[in-house]
Amino acid sequence: MSQVNVEFQPVGRRGEFQGGKSLLDYARKLGVGLSSVCGGKGTFGKCRVQIVSGSSSEPTSREKSAFSPKQLKSGWRLACQTIPSGDCIVHVPVESMTAPQRTQLEGLDIPVRLKAPVKTHDIELALPSLSDTVGDADRLLRAVKAQRRASANSVDISVMSSLSPNLRAWSWKCQAMVRDREVISVSPQHGRCLGLAVDFGTTKLAGYLVDLTNGKTLASKGLMNPQISYGEDIISRCNIAASSAEGAVQMQKLAADAISELGAILSKEVGAVSSDIVEAVVVGNTAMHHLYLGLPVAQLARAPFVPAVNSELSVRARDLGIRIAPGAYLYTMPNIAGFVGADHVSMLLASEVRQAKGVIVALDIGTNTEISLIDHGRISSISCASGPAFEGGHIKDGMRAGTGAIERVHVTQDGLQYETIDDAPPVGICGSGIIDAVAQLYLAGIADAGGRMKTGHPTVREHEGQYELVLAGDRERTGSAAIVFTQHDVRELQLGKAAIRGGIQTLLDLADLNDEDITQVIIAGAFGSYLDVSSAVDIGMLPALPLECFKQVGNAAGMGAKRALISTEQRAEARTIAAEARYIELAGTASFNENFVQALQLGRYRLIHGKREEIL
Amino acid sequence: MSQVNVEFQPVGRRGEFQGGKSLLDYARKLGVGLSSVCGGKGTFGKCRVQIVSGSSSEPTSREKSAFSPKQLKSGWRLACQTIPSGDCIVHVPVESMTAPQRTQLEGLDIPVRLKAPVKTHDIELALPSLSDTVGDADRLLRAVKAQRRASANSVDISVMSSLSPNLRAWSWKCQAMVRDREVISVSPQHGRCLGLAVDFGTTKLAGYLVDLTNGKTLASKGLMNPQISYGEDIISRCNIAASSAEGAVQMQKLAADAISELGAILSKEVGAVSSDIVEAVVVGNTAMHHLYLGLPVAQLARAPFVPAVNSELSVRARDLGIRIAPGAYLYTMPNIAGFVGADHVSMLLASEVRQAKGVIVALDIGTNTEISLIDHGRISSISCASGPAFEGGHIKDGMRAGTGAIERVHVTQDGLQYETIDDAPPVGICGSGIIDAVAQLYLAGIADAGGRMKTGHPTVREHEGQYELVLAGDRERTGSAAIVFTQHDVRELQLGKAAIRGGIQTLLDLADLNDEDITQVIIAGAFGSYLDVSSAVDIGMLPALPLECFKQVGNAAGMGAKRALISTEQRAEARTIAAEARYIELAGTASFNENFVQALQLGRYRLIHGKREEIL
Repeated sequence: MSQVNVEFQPVGRRGEFQGGKSLLDYARKLGVGLSSVCGGKGTFGKCRVQIVSGSSSEPTSREKSAFSPKQLKSGWRLACQTIPSGDCIVHVPVESMTAPQRTQLEGLDIPVRLKAPVKTHDIELALPSLSDTVGDADRLLRAVKAQRRASANSVDISVMSSLSPNLRAWSWKCQAMVRDREVISVSPQHGRCLGLAVDFGTTKLAGYLVDLTNGKTLASKGLMNPQISYGEDIISRCNIAASSAEGAVQMQKLAADAISELGAILSKEVGAVSSDIVEAVVVGNTAMHHLYLGLPVAQLARAPFVPAVNSELSVRARDLGIRIAPGAYLYTMPNIAGFVGADHVSMLLASEVRQAKGVIVALDIGTNTEISLIDHGRISSISCASGPAFEGGHIKDGMRAGTGAIERVHVTQDGLQYETIDDAPPVGICGSGIIDAVAQLYLAGIADAGGRMKTGHPTVREHEGQYELVLAGDRERTGSAAIVFTQHDVRELQLGKAAIRGGIQTLLDLADLNDEDITQVIIAGAFGSYLDVSSAVDIGMLPALPLECFKQVGNAAGMGAKRALISTEQRAEARTIAAEARYIELAGTASFNENFVQALQLGRYRLIHGKREEIL
Repeated sequence: MSQVNVEFQPVGRRGEFQGGKSLLDYARKLGVGLSSVCGGKGTFGKCRVQIVSGSSSEPTSREKSAFSPKQLKSGWRLACQTIPSGDCIVHVPVESMTAPQRTQLEGLDIPVRLKAPVKTHDIELALPSLSDTVGDADRLLRAVKAQRRASANSVDISVMSSLSPNLRAWSWKCQAMVRDREVISVSPQHGRCLGLAVDFGTTKLAGYLVDLTNGKTLASKGLMNPQISYGEDIISRCNIAASSAEGAVQMQKLAADAISELGAILSKEVGAVSSDIVEAVVVGNTAMHHLYLGLPVAQLARAPFVPAVNSELSVRARDLGIRIAPGAYLYTMPNIAGFVGADHVSMLLASEVRQAKGVIVALDIGTNTEISLIDHGRISSISCASGPAFEGGHIKDGMRAGTGAIERVHVTQDGLQYETIDDAPPVGICGSGIIDAVAQLYLAGIADAGGRMKTGHPTVREHEGQYELVLAGDRERTGSAAIVFTQHDVRELQLGKAAIRGGIQTLLDLADLNDEDITQVIIAGAFGSYLDVSSAVDIGMLPALPLECFKQVGNAAGMGAKRALISTEQRAEARTIAAEARYIELAGTASFNENFVQALQLGRYRLIHGKREEIL
């Protein structure tokens, strides 16, 4: 057997192998997290890949049933069935990855032109003398002004408070960090100039450390949101903040400390210190945004759900108790509305939706799902109450996506197979597994279109008068109770998915568009990355479009924060997005209720003049 | 005897009296602090006043010897000798007041056009609704922009942190305080909008509370500088701040607390609260300026004596720990140099020196005396080490100007008379008394021009081989030691006054001018107000010009701070003064040493081509 070179994209892993093995085998060797629920038997079709160039074995019968002849011609294959016969380049779509989010967290370059809000200037100052007794800060400004393309007319008080001894210790040489004509930090020459981008999620924070002089991501890190100890959901945290001044201070302090900690950990990782961070960009949903800025939230929770502020803000980090460079600012993107926050703007920014042609639907799926419809650049946004099911909430054995969570389910004729996160023994089922489970129940005929389960399949049992799917049985669990998916769980998911699909449909209605007009569906967020799009389409949660129309973009909010961190042009674009986006209150629309009801049923469908038409 | 109406200006006191008494009697009844060291005998000529309109008794022989015929014709009289024969208006020059500083502290209107840096706008906001969910801060900005002559594009985070509940509690009506396009404070409608001006002296702070909507001074208050417990002189406080980070923090905190306290006391006095203060202006000498801003001072004390910053600054008050409105700024005027600070700029501003015609000498007398020569608008400034004698330092029985301090001395043929502050029993001698004492010793022939004392006068005794003037004898002091003024004290004062006169002379030399070219001598500061100008001229401390040339302006630095508080035009003028003032290092001049030596001798004199010529 001759050697073959195999390259997997967009993850960018490649290797040289002894031939004769499948693409799945090579992917495993390279650590590419390809979905493999079938164990290499080609039974589930989860390991779909596209061979961009190169030759391989002929399609097997399983592949012929998984793909149309047109798809096969375009190079679509099942990785477990395909044996390369020469060098090849393989495209792995996000939906075939088990852990696409992790890949995105590791961070690629930021595809925008560097135009950082903070610029560094290496400066050499004239020595003071009896004939030149200009003050130290004025001397610094004079030297900055003498630089090419530099301009500054003030020095932050925190810089001045140590500038005089520093300049003398550094022999009148320094690096000045200038933001909006203000010197916000000074360091010895050739020092670091770092930026911190944070996606401040309700559950997790994702932090990215970026070199502001070249726009490169140096390190990234996830951290639990410490506010979670005060309540998993946003509402309970807002209640704490709204009920007392101490509560508000506590929520803000937890947030500030978490951001500071992220900065400290990331700095340390690259041999720097927190005070090398001279700019931070933080994005979150409107409630999180208010909590980390210490803004009041009581009015957010009551109609008409008004934010304390919509506009973008630059707040001195020290005013928020965030421990980075003392003169640094924290920038937050604008909010669109009380339930469509800066993180959604950030996601739209990273997805470059205003520049895209056609009709785009962009979703952030969570307890509240924010959806924007972008019709040739015109943005309309809604928020719908999709409930906690996608995060494992209100589901009998539900859990958040973590080690041991069942994230893939496949019901076979005589049984059931699943995958867990980190291949650990199962402890519960997370959002992507829940959607798989419902889809599989429906496709296997165990649940009807209305979601009602019936018996007759070996994995279904009756318990207290209700049917339930046994994911991991008593025997397998040795001592622990079985992990099940109940009739009630199906109902819970139906409500959530109907809210999302109803929301999409309402946006289409208002724009006088149909499913077929949609060019692309962008699904952001951690859950959105793990989600099996086919399953979501099968249960009617997402429109029945060709899979190529869906783009799972991972932590796009974090990517948007990185863009804003290194580019004032991107900040201007974020302003434009928020200013142009038209927020629509679903309660005020004519069609949402009808659309919601239509979306409750399982199965692929579309609406024709308001009438549901199943797609087989 | 018919009734007479007598009005004293510029203090603005008037009353109707039974005729037949002297102007001094009426002044006393009205509480006008006219100097009266002679006890009404007309012997000292300290109670000089000018009758601006009205008729009075013919000049007495004492008055004829005190004034020239021309002066008498202009209405100059001794208040103790003059009996009004009808209604009259009397001008009381500062040098005839015992407590001019107190008068100035009580504060008159500020003679500049109101152009406050903080403007208030009464706003009524549109109520939010489901069809208008604009954020609260954005809603506020929208309403401000809709006002005439109003503009704002940001809201301080401290305002936003309570804006949402406030607007709802105030039924969407409020007063917005806008500074430089930023909303820095919000209050219920028709709330206060106050400013705090502080002259931050080495010994005392003088605070003024001003209504920023009309420019009126509402209250004023003096406070000891609490840093004094760490050393009376600037150097020891700078040493503390320079020797450790804790020391620097402590010095800054003491300053911030004192400013906060002044604000709190003054607010309370007018029924307001500290948070009604939305702007503060603080001026001080360069060292004080650095200490209250928390700037490093080590480099200030070493050649080439470079300030941490010269430029004017607007620093958020909260960044300095100053407790006024959370969004308020503290503005400080620019420094000219390490030893010519913002307080001198403020004094020059209040004296309107750039607008004045002719040649002006402006002095702030203290341990360091700052002197500016303004030659038809062109400003040159120096600082000379005049020593602590003017504040009672290094003088055997010296003390600061306080209750019981001897502030006036008159040596008669057979004895001595004095006045004390508050007419209290004597406890020591303060700066103005010291200058009087030396002048009287010289005029009475007890000390020669070289300052050497001799015996032969009943008030002079010998003690440990040195002559000394007994101000309050053992008998009078009943138990306490006598209060004396020694030969050493005369020497100490000679050094101090020679530095000042030498400095003035050097400025004149550099501008190629003589004493006779001087149009006006402006003497600022508390000590400068109490100083007897004749005595200062008699000892050769000040040029021998007609008394009309001297203007004792009291706390001009405080007045300048008030101007800057209510007028951005005055801030621009302060910038211009600091930018145009040429600082001259005396050590670098050719003539200072020679001028200093010439100025050591007592007696009125002028220099003709560098040669001392006595004036009799």
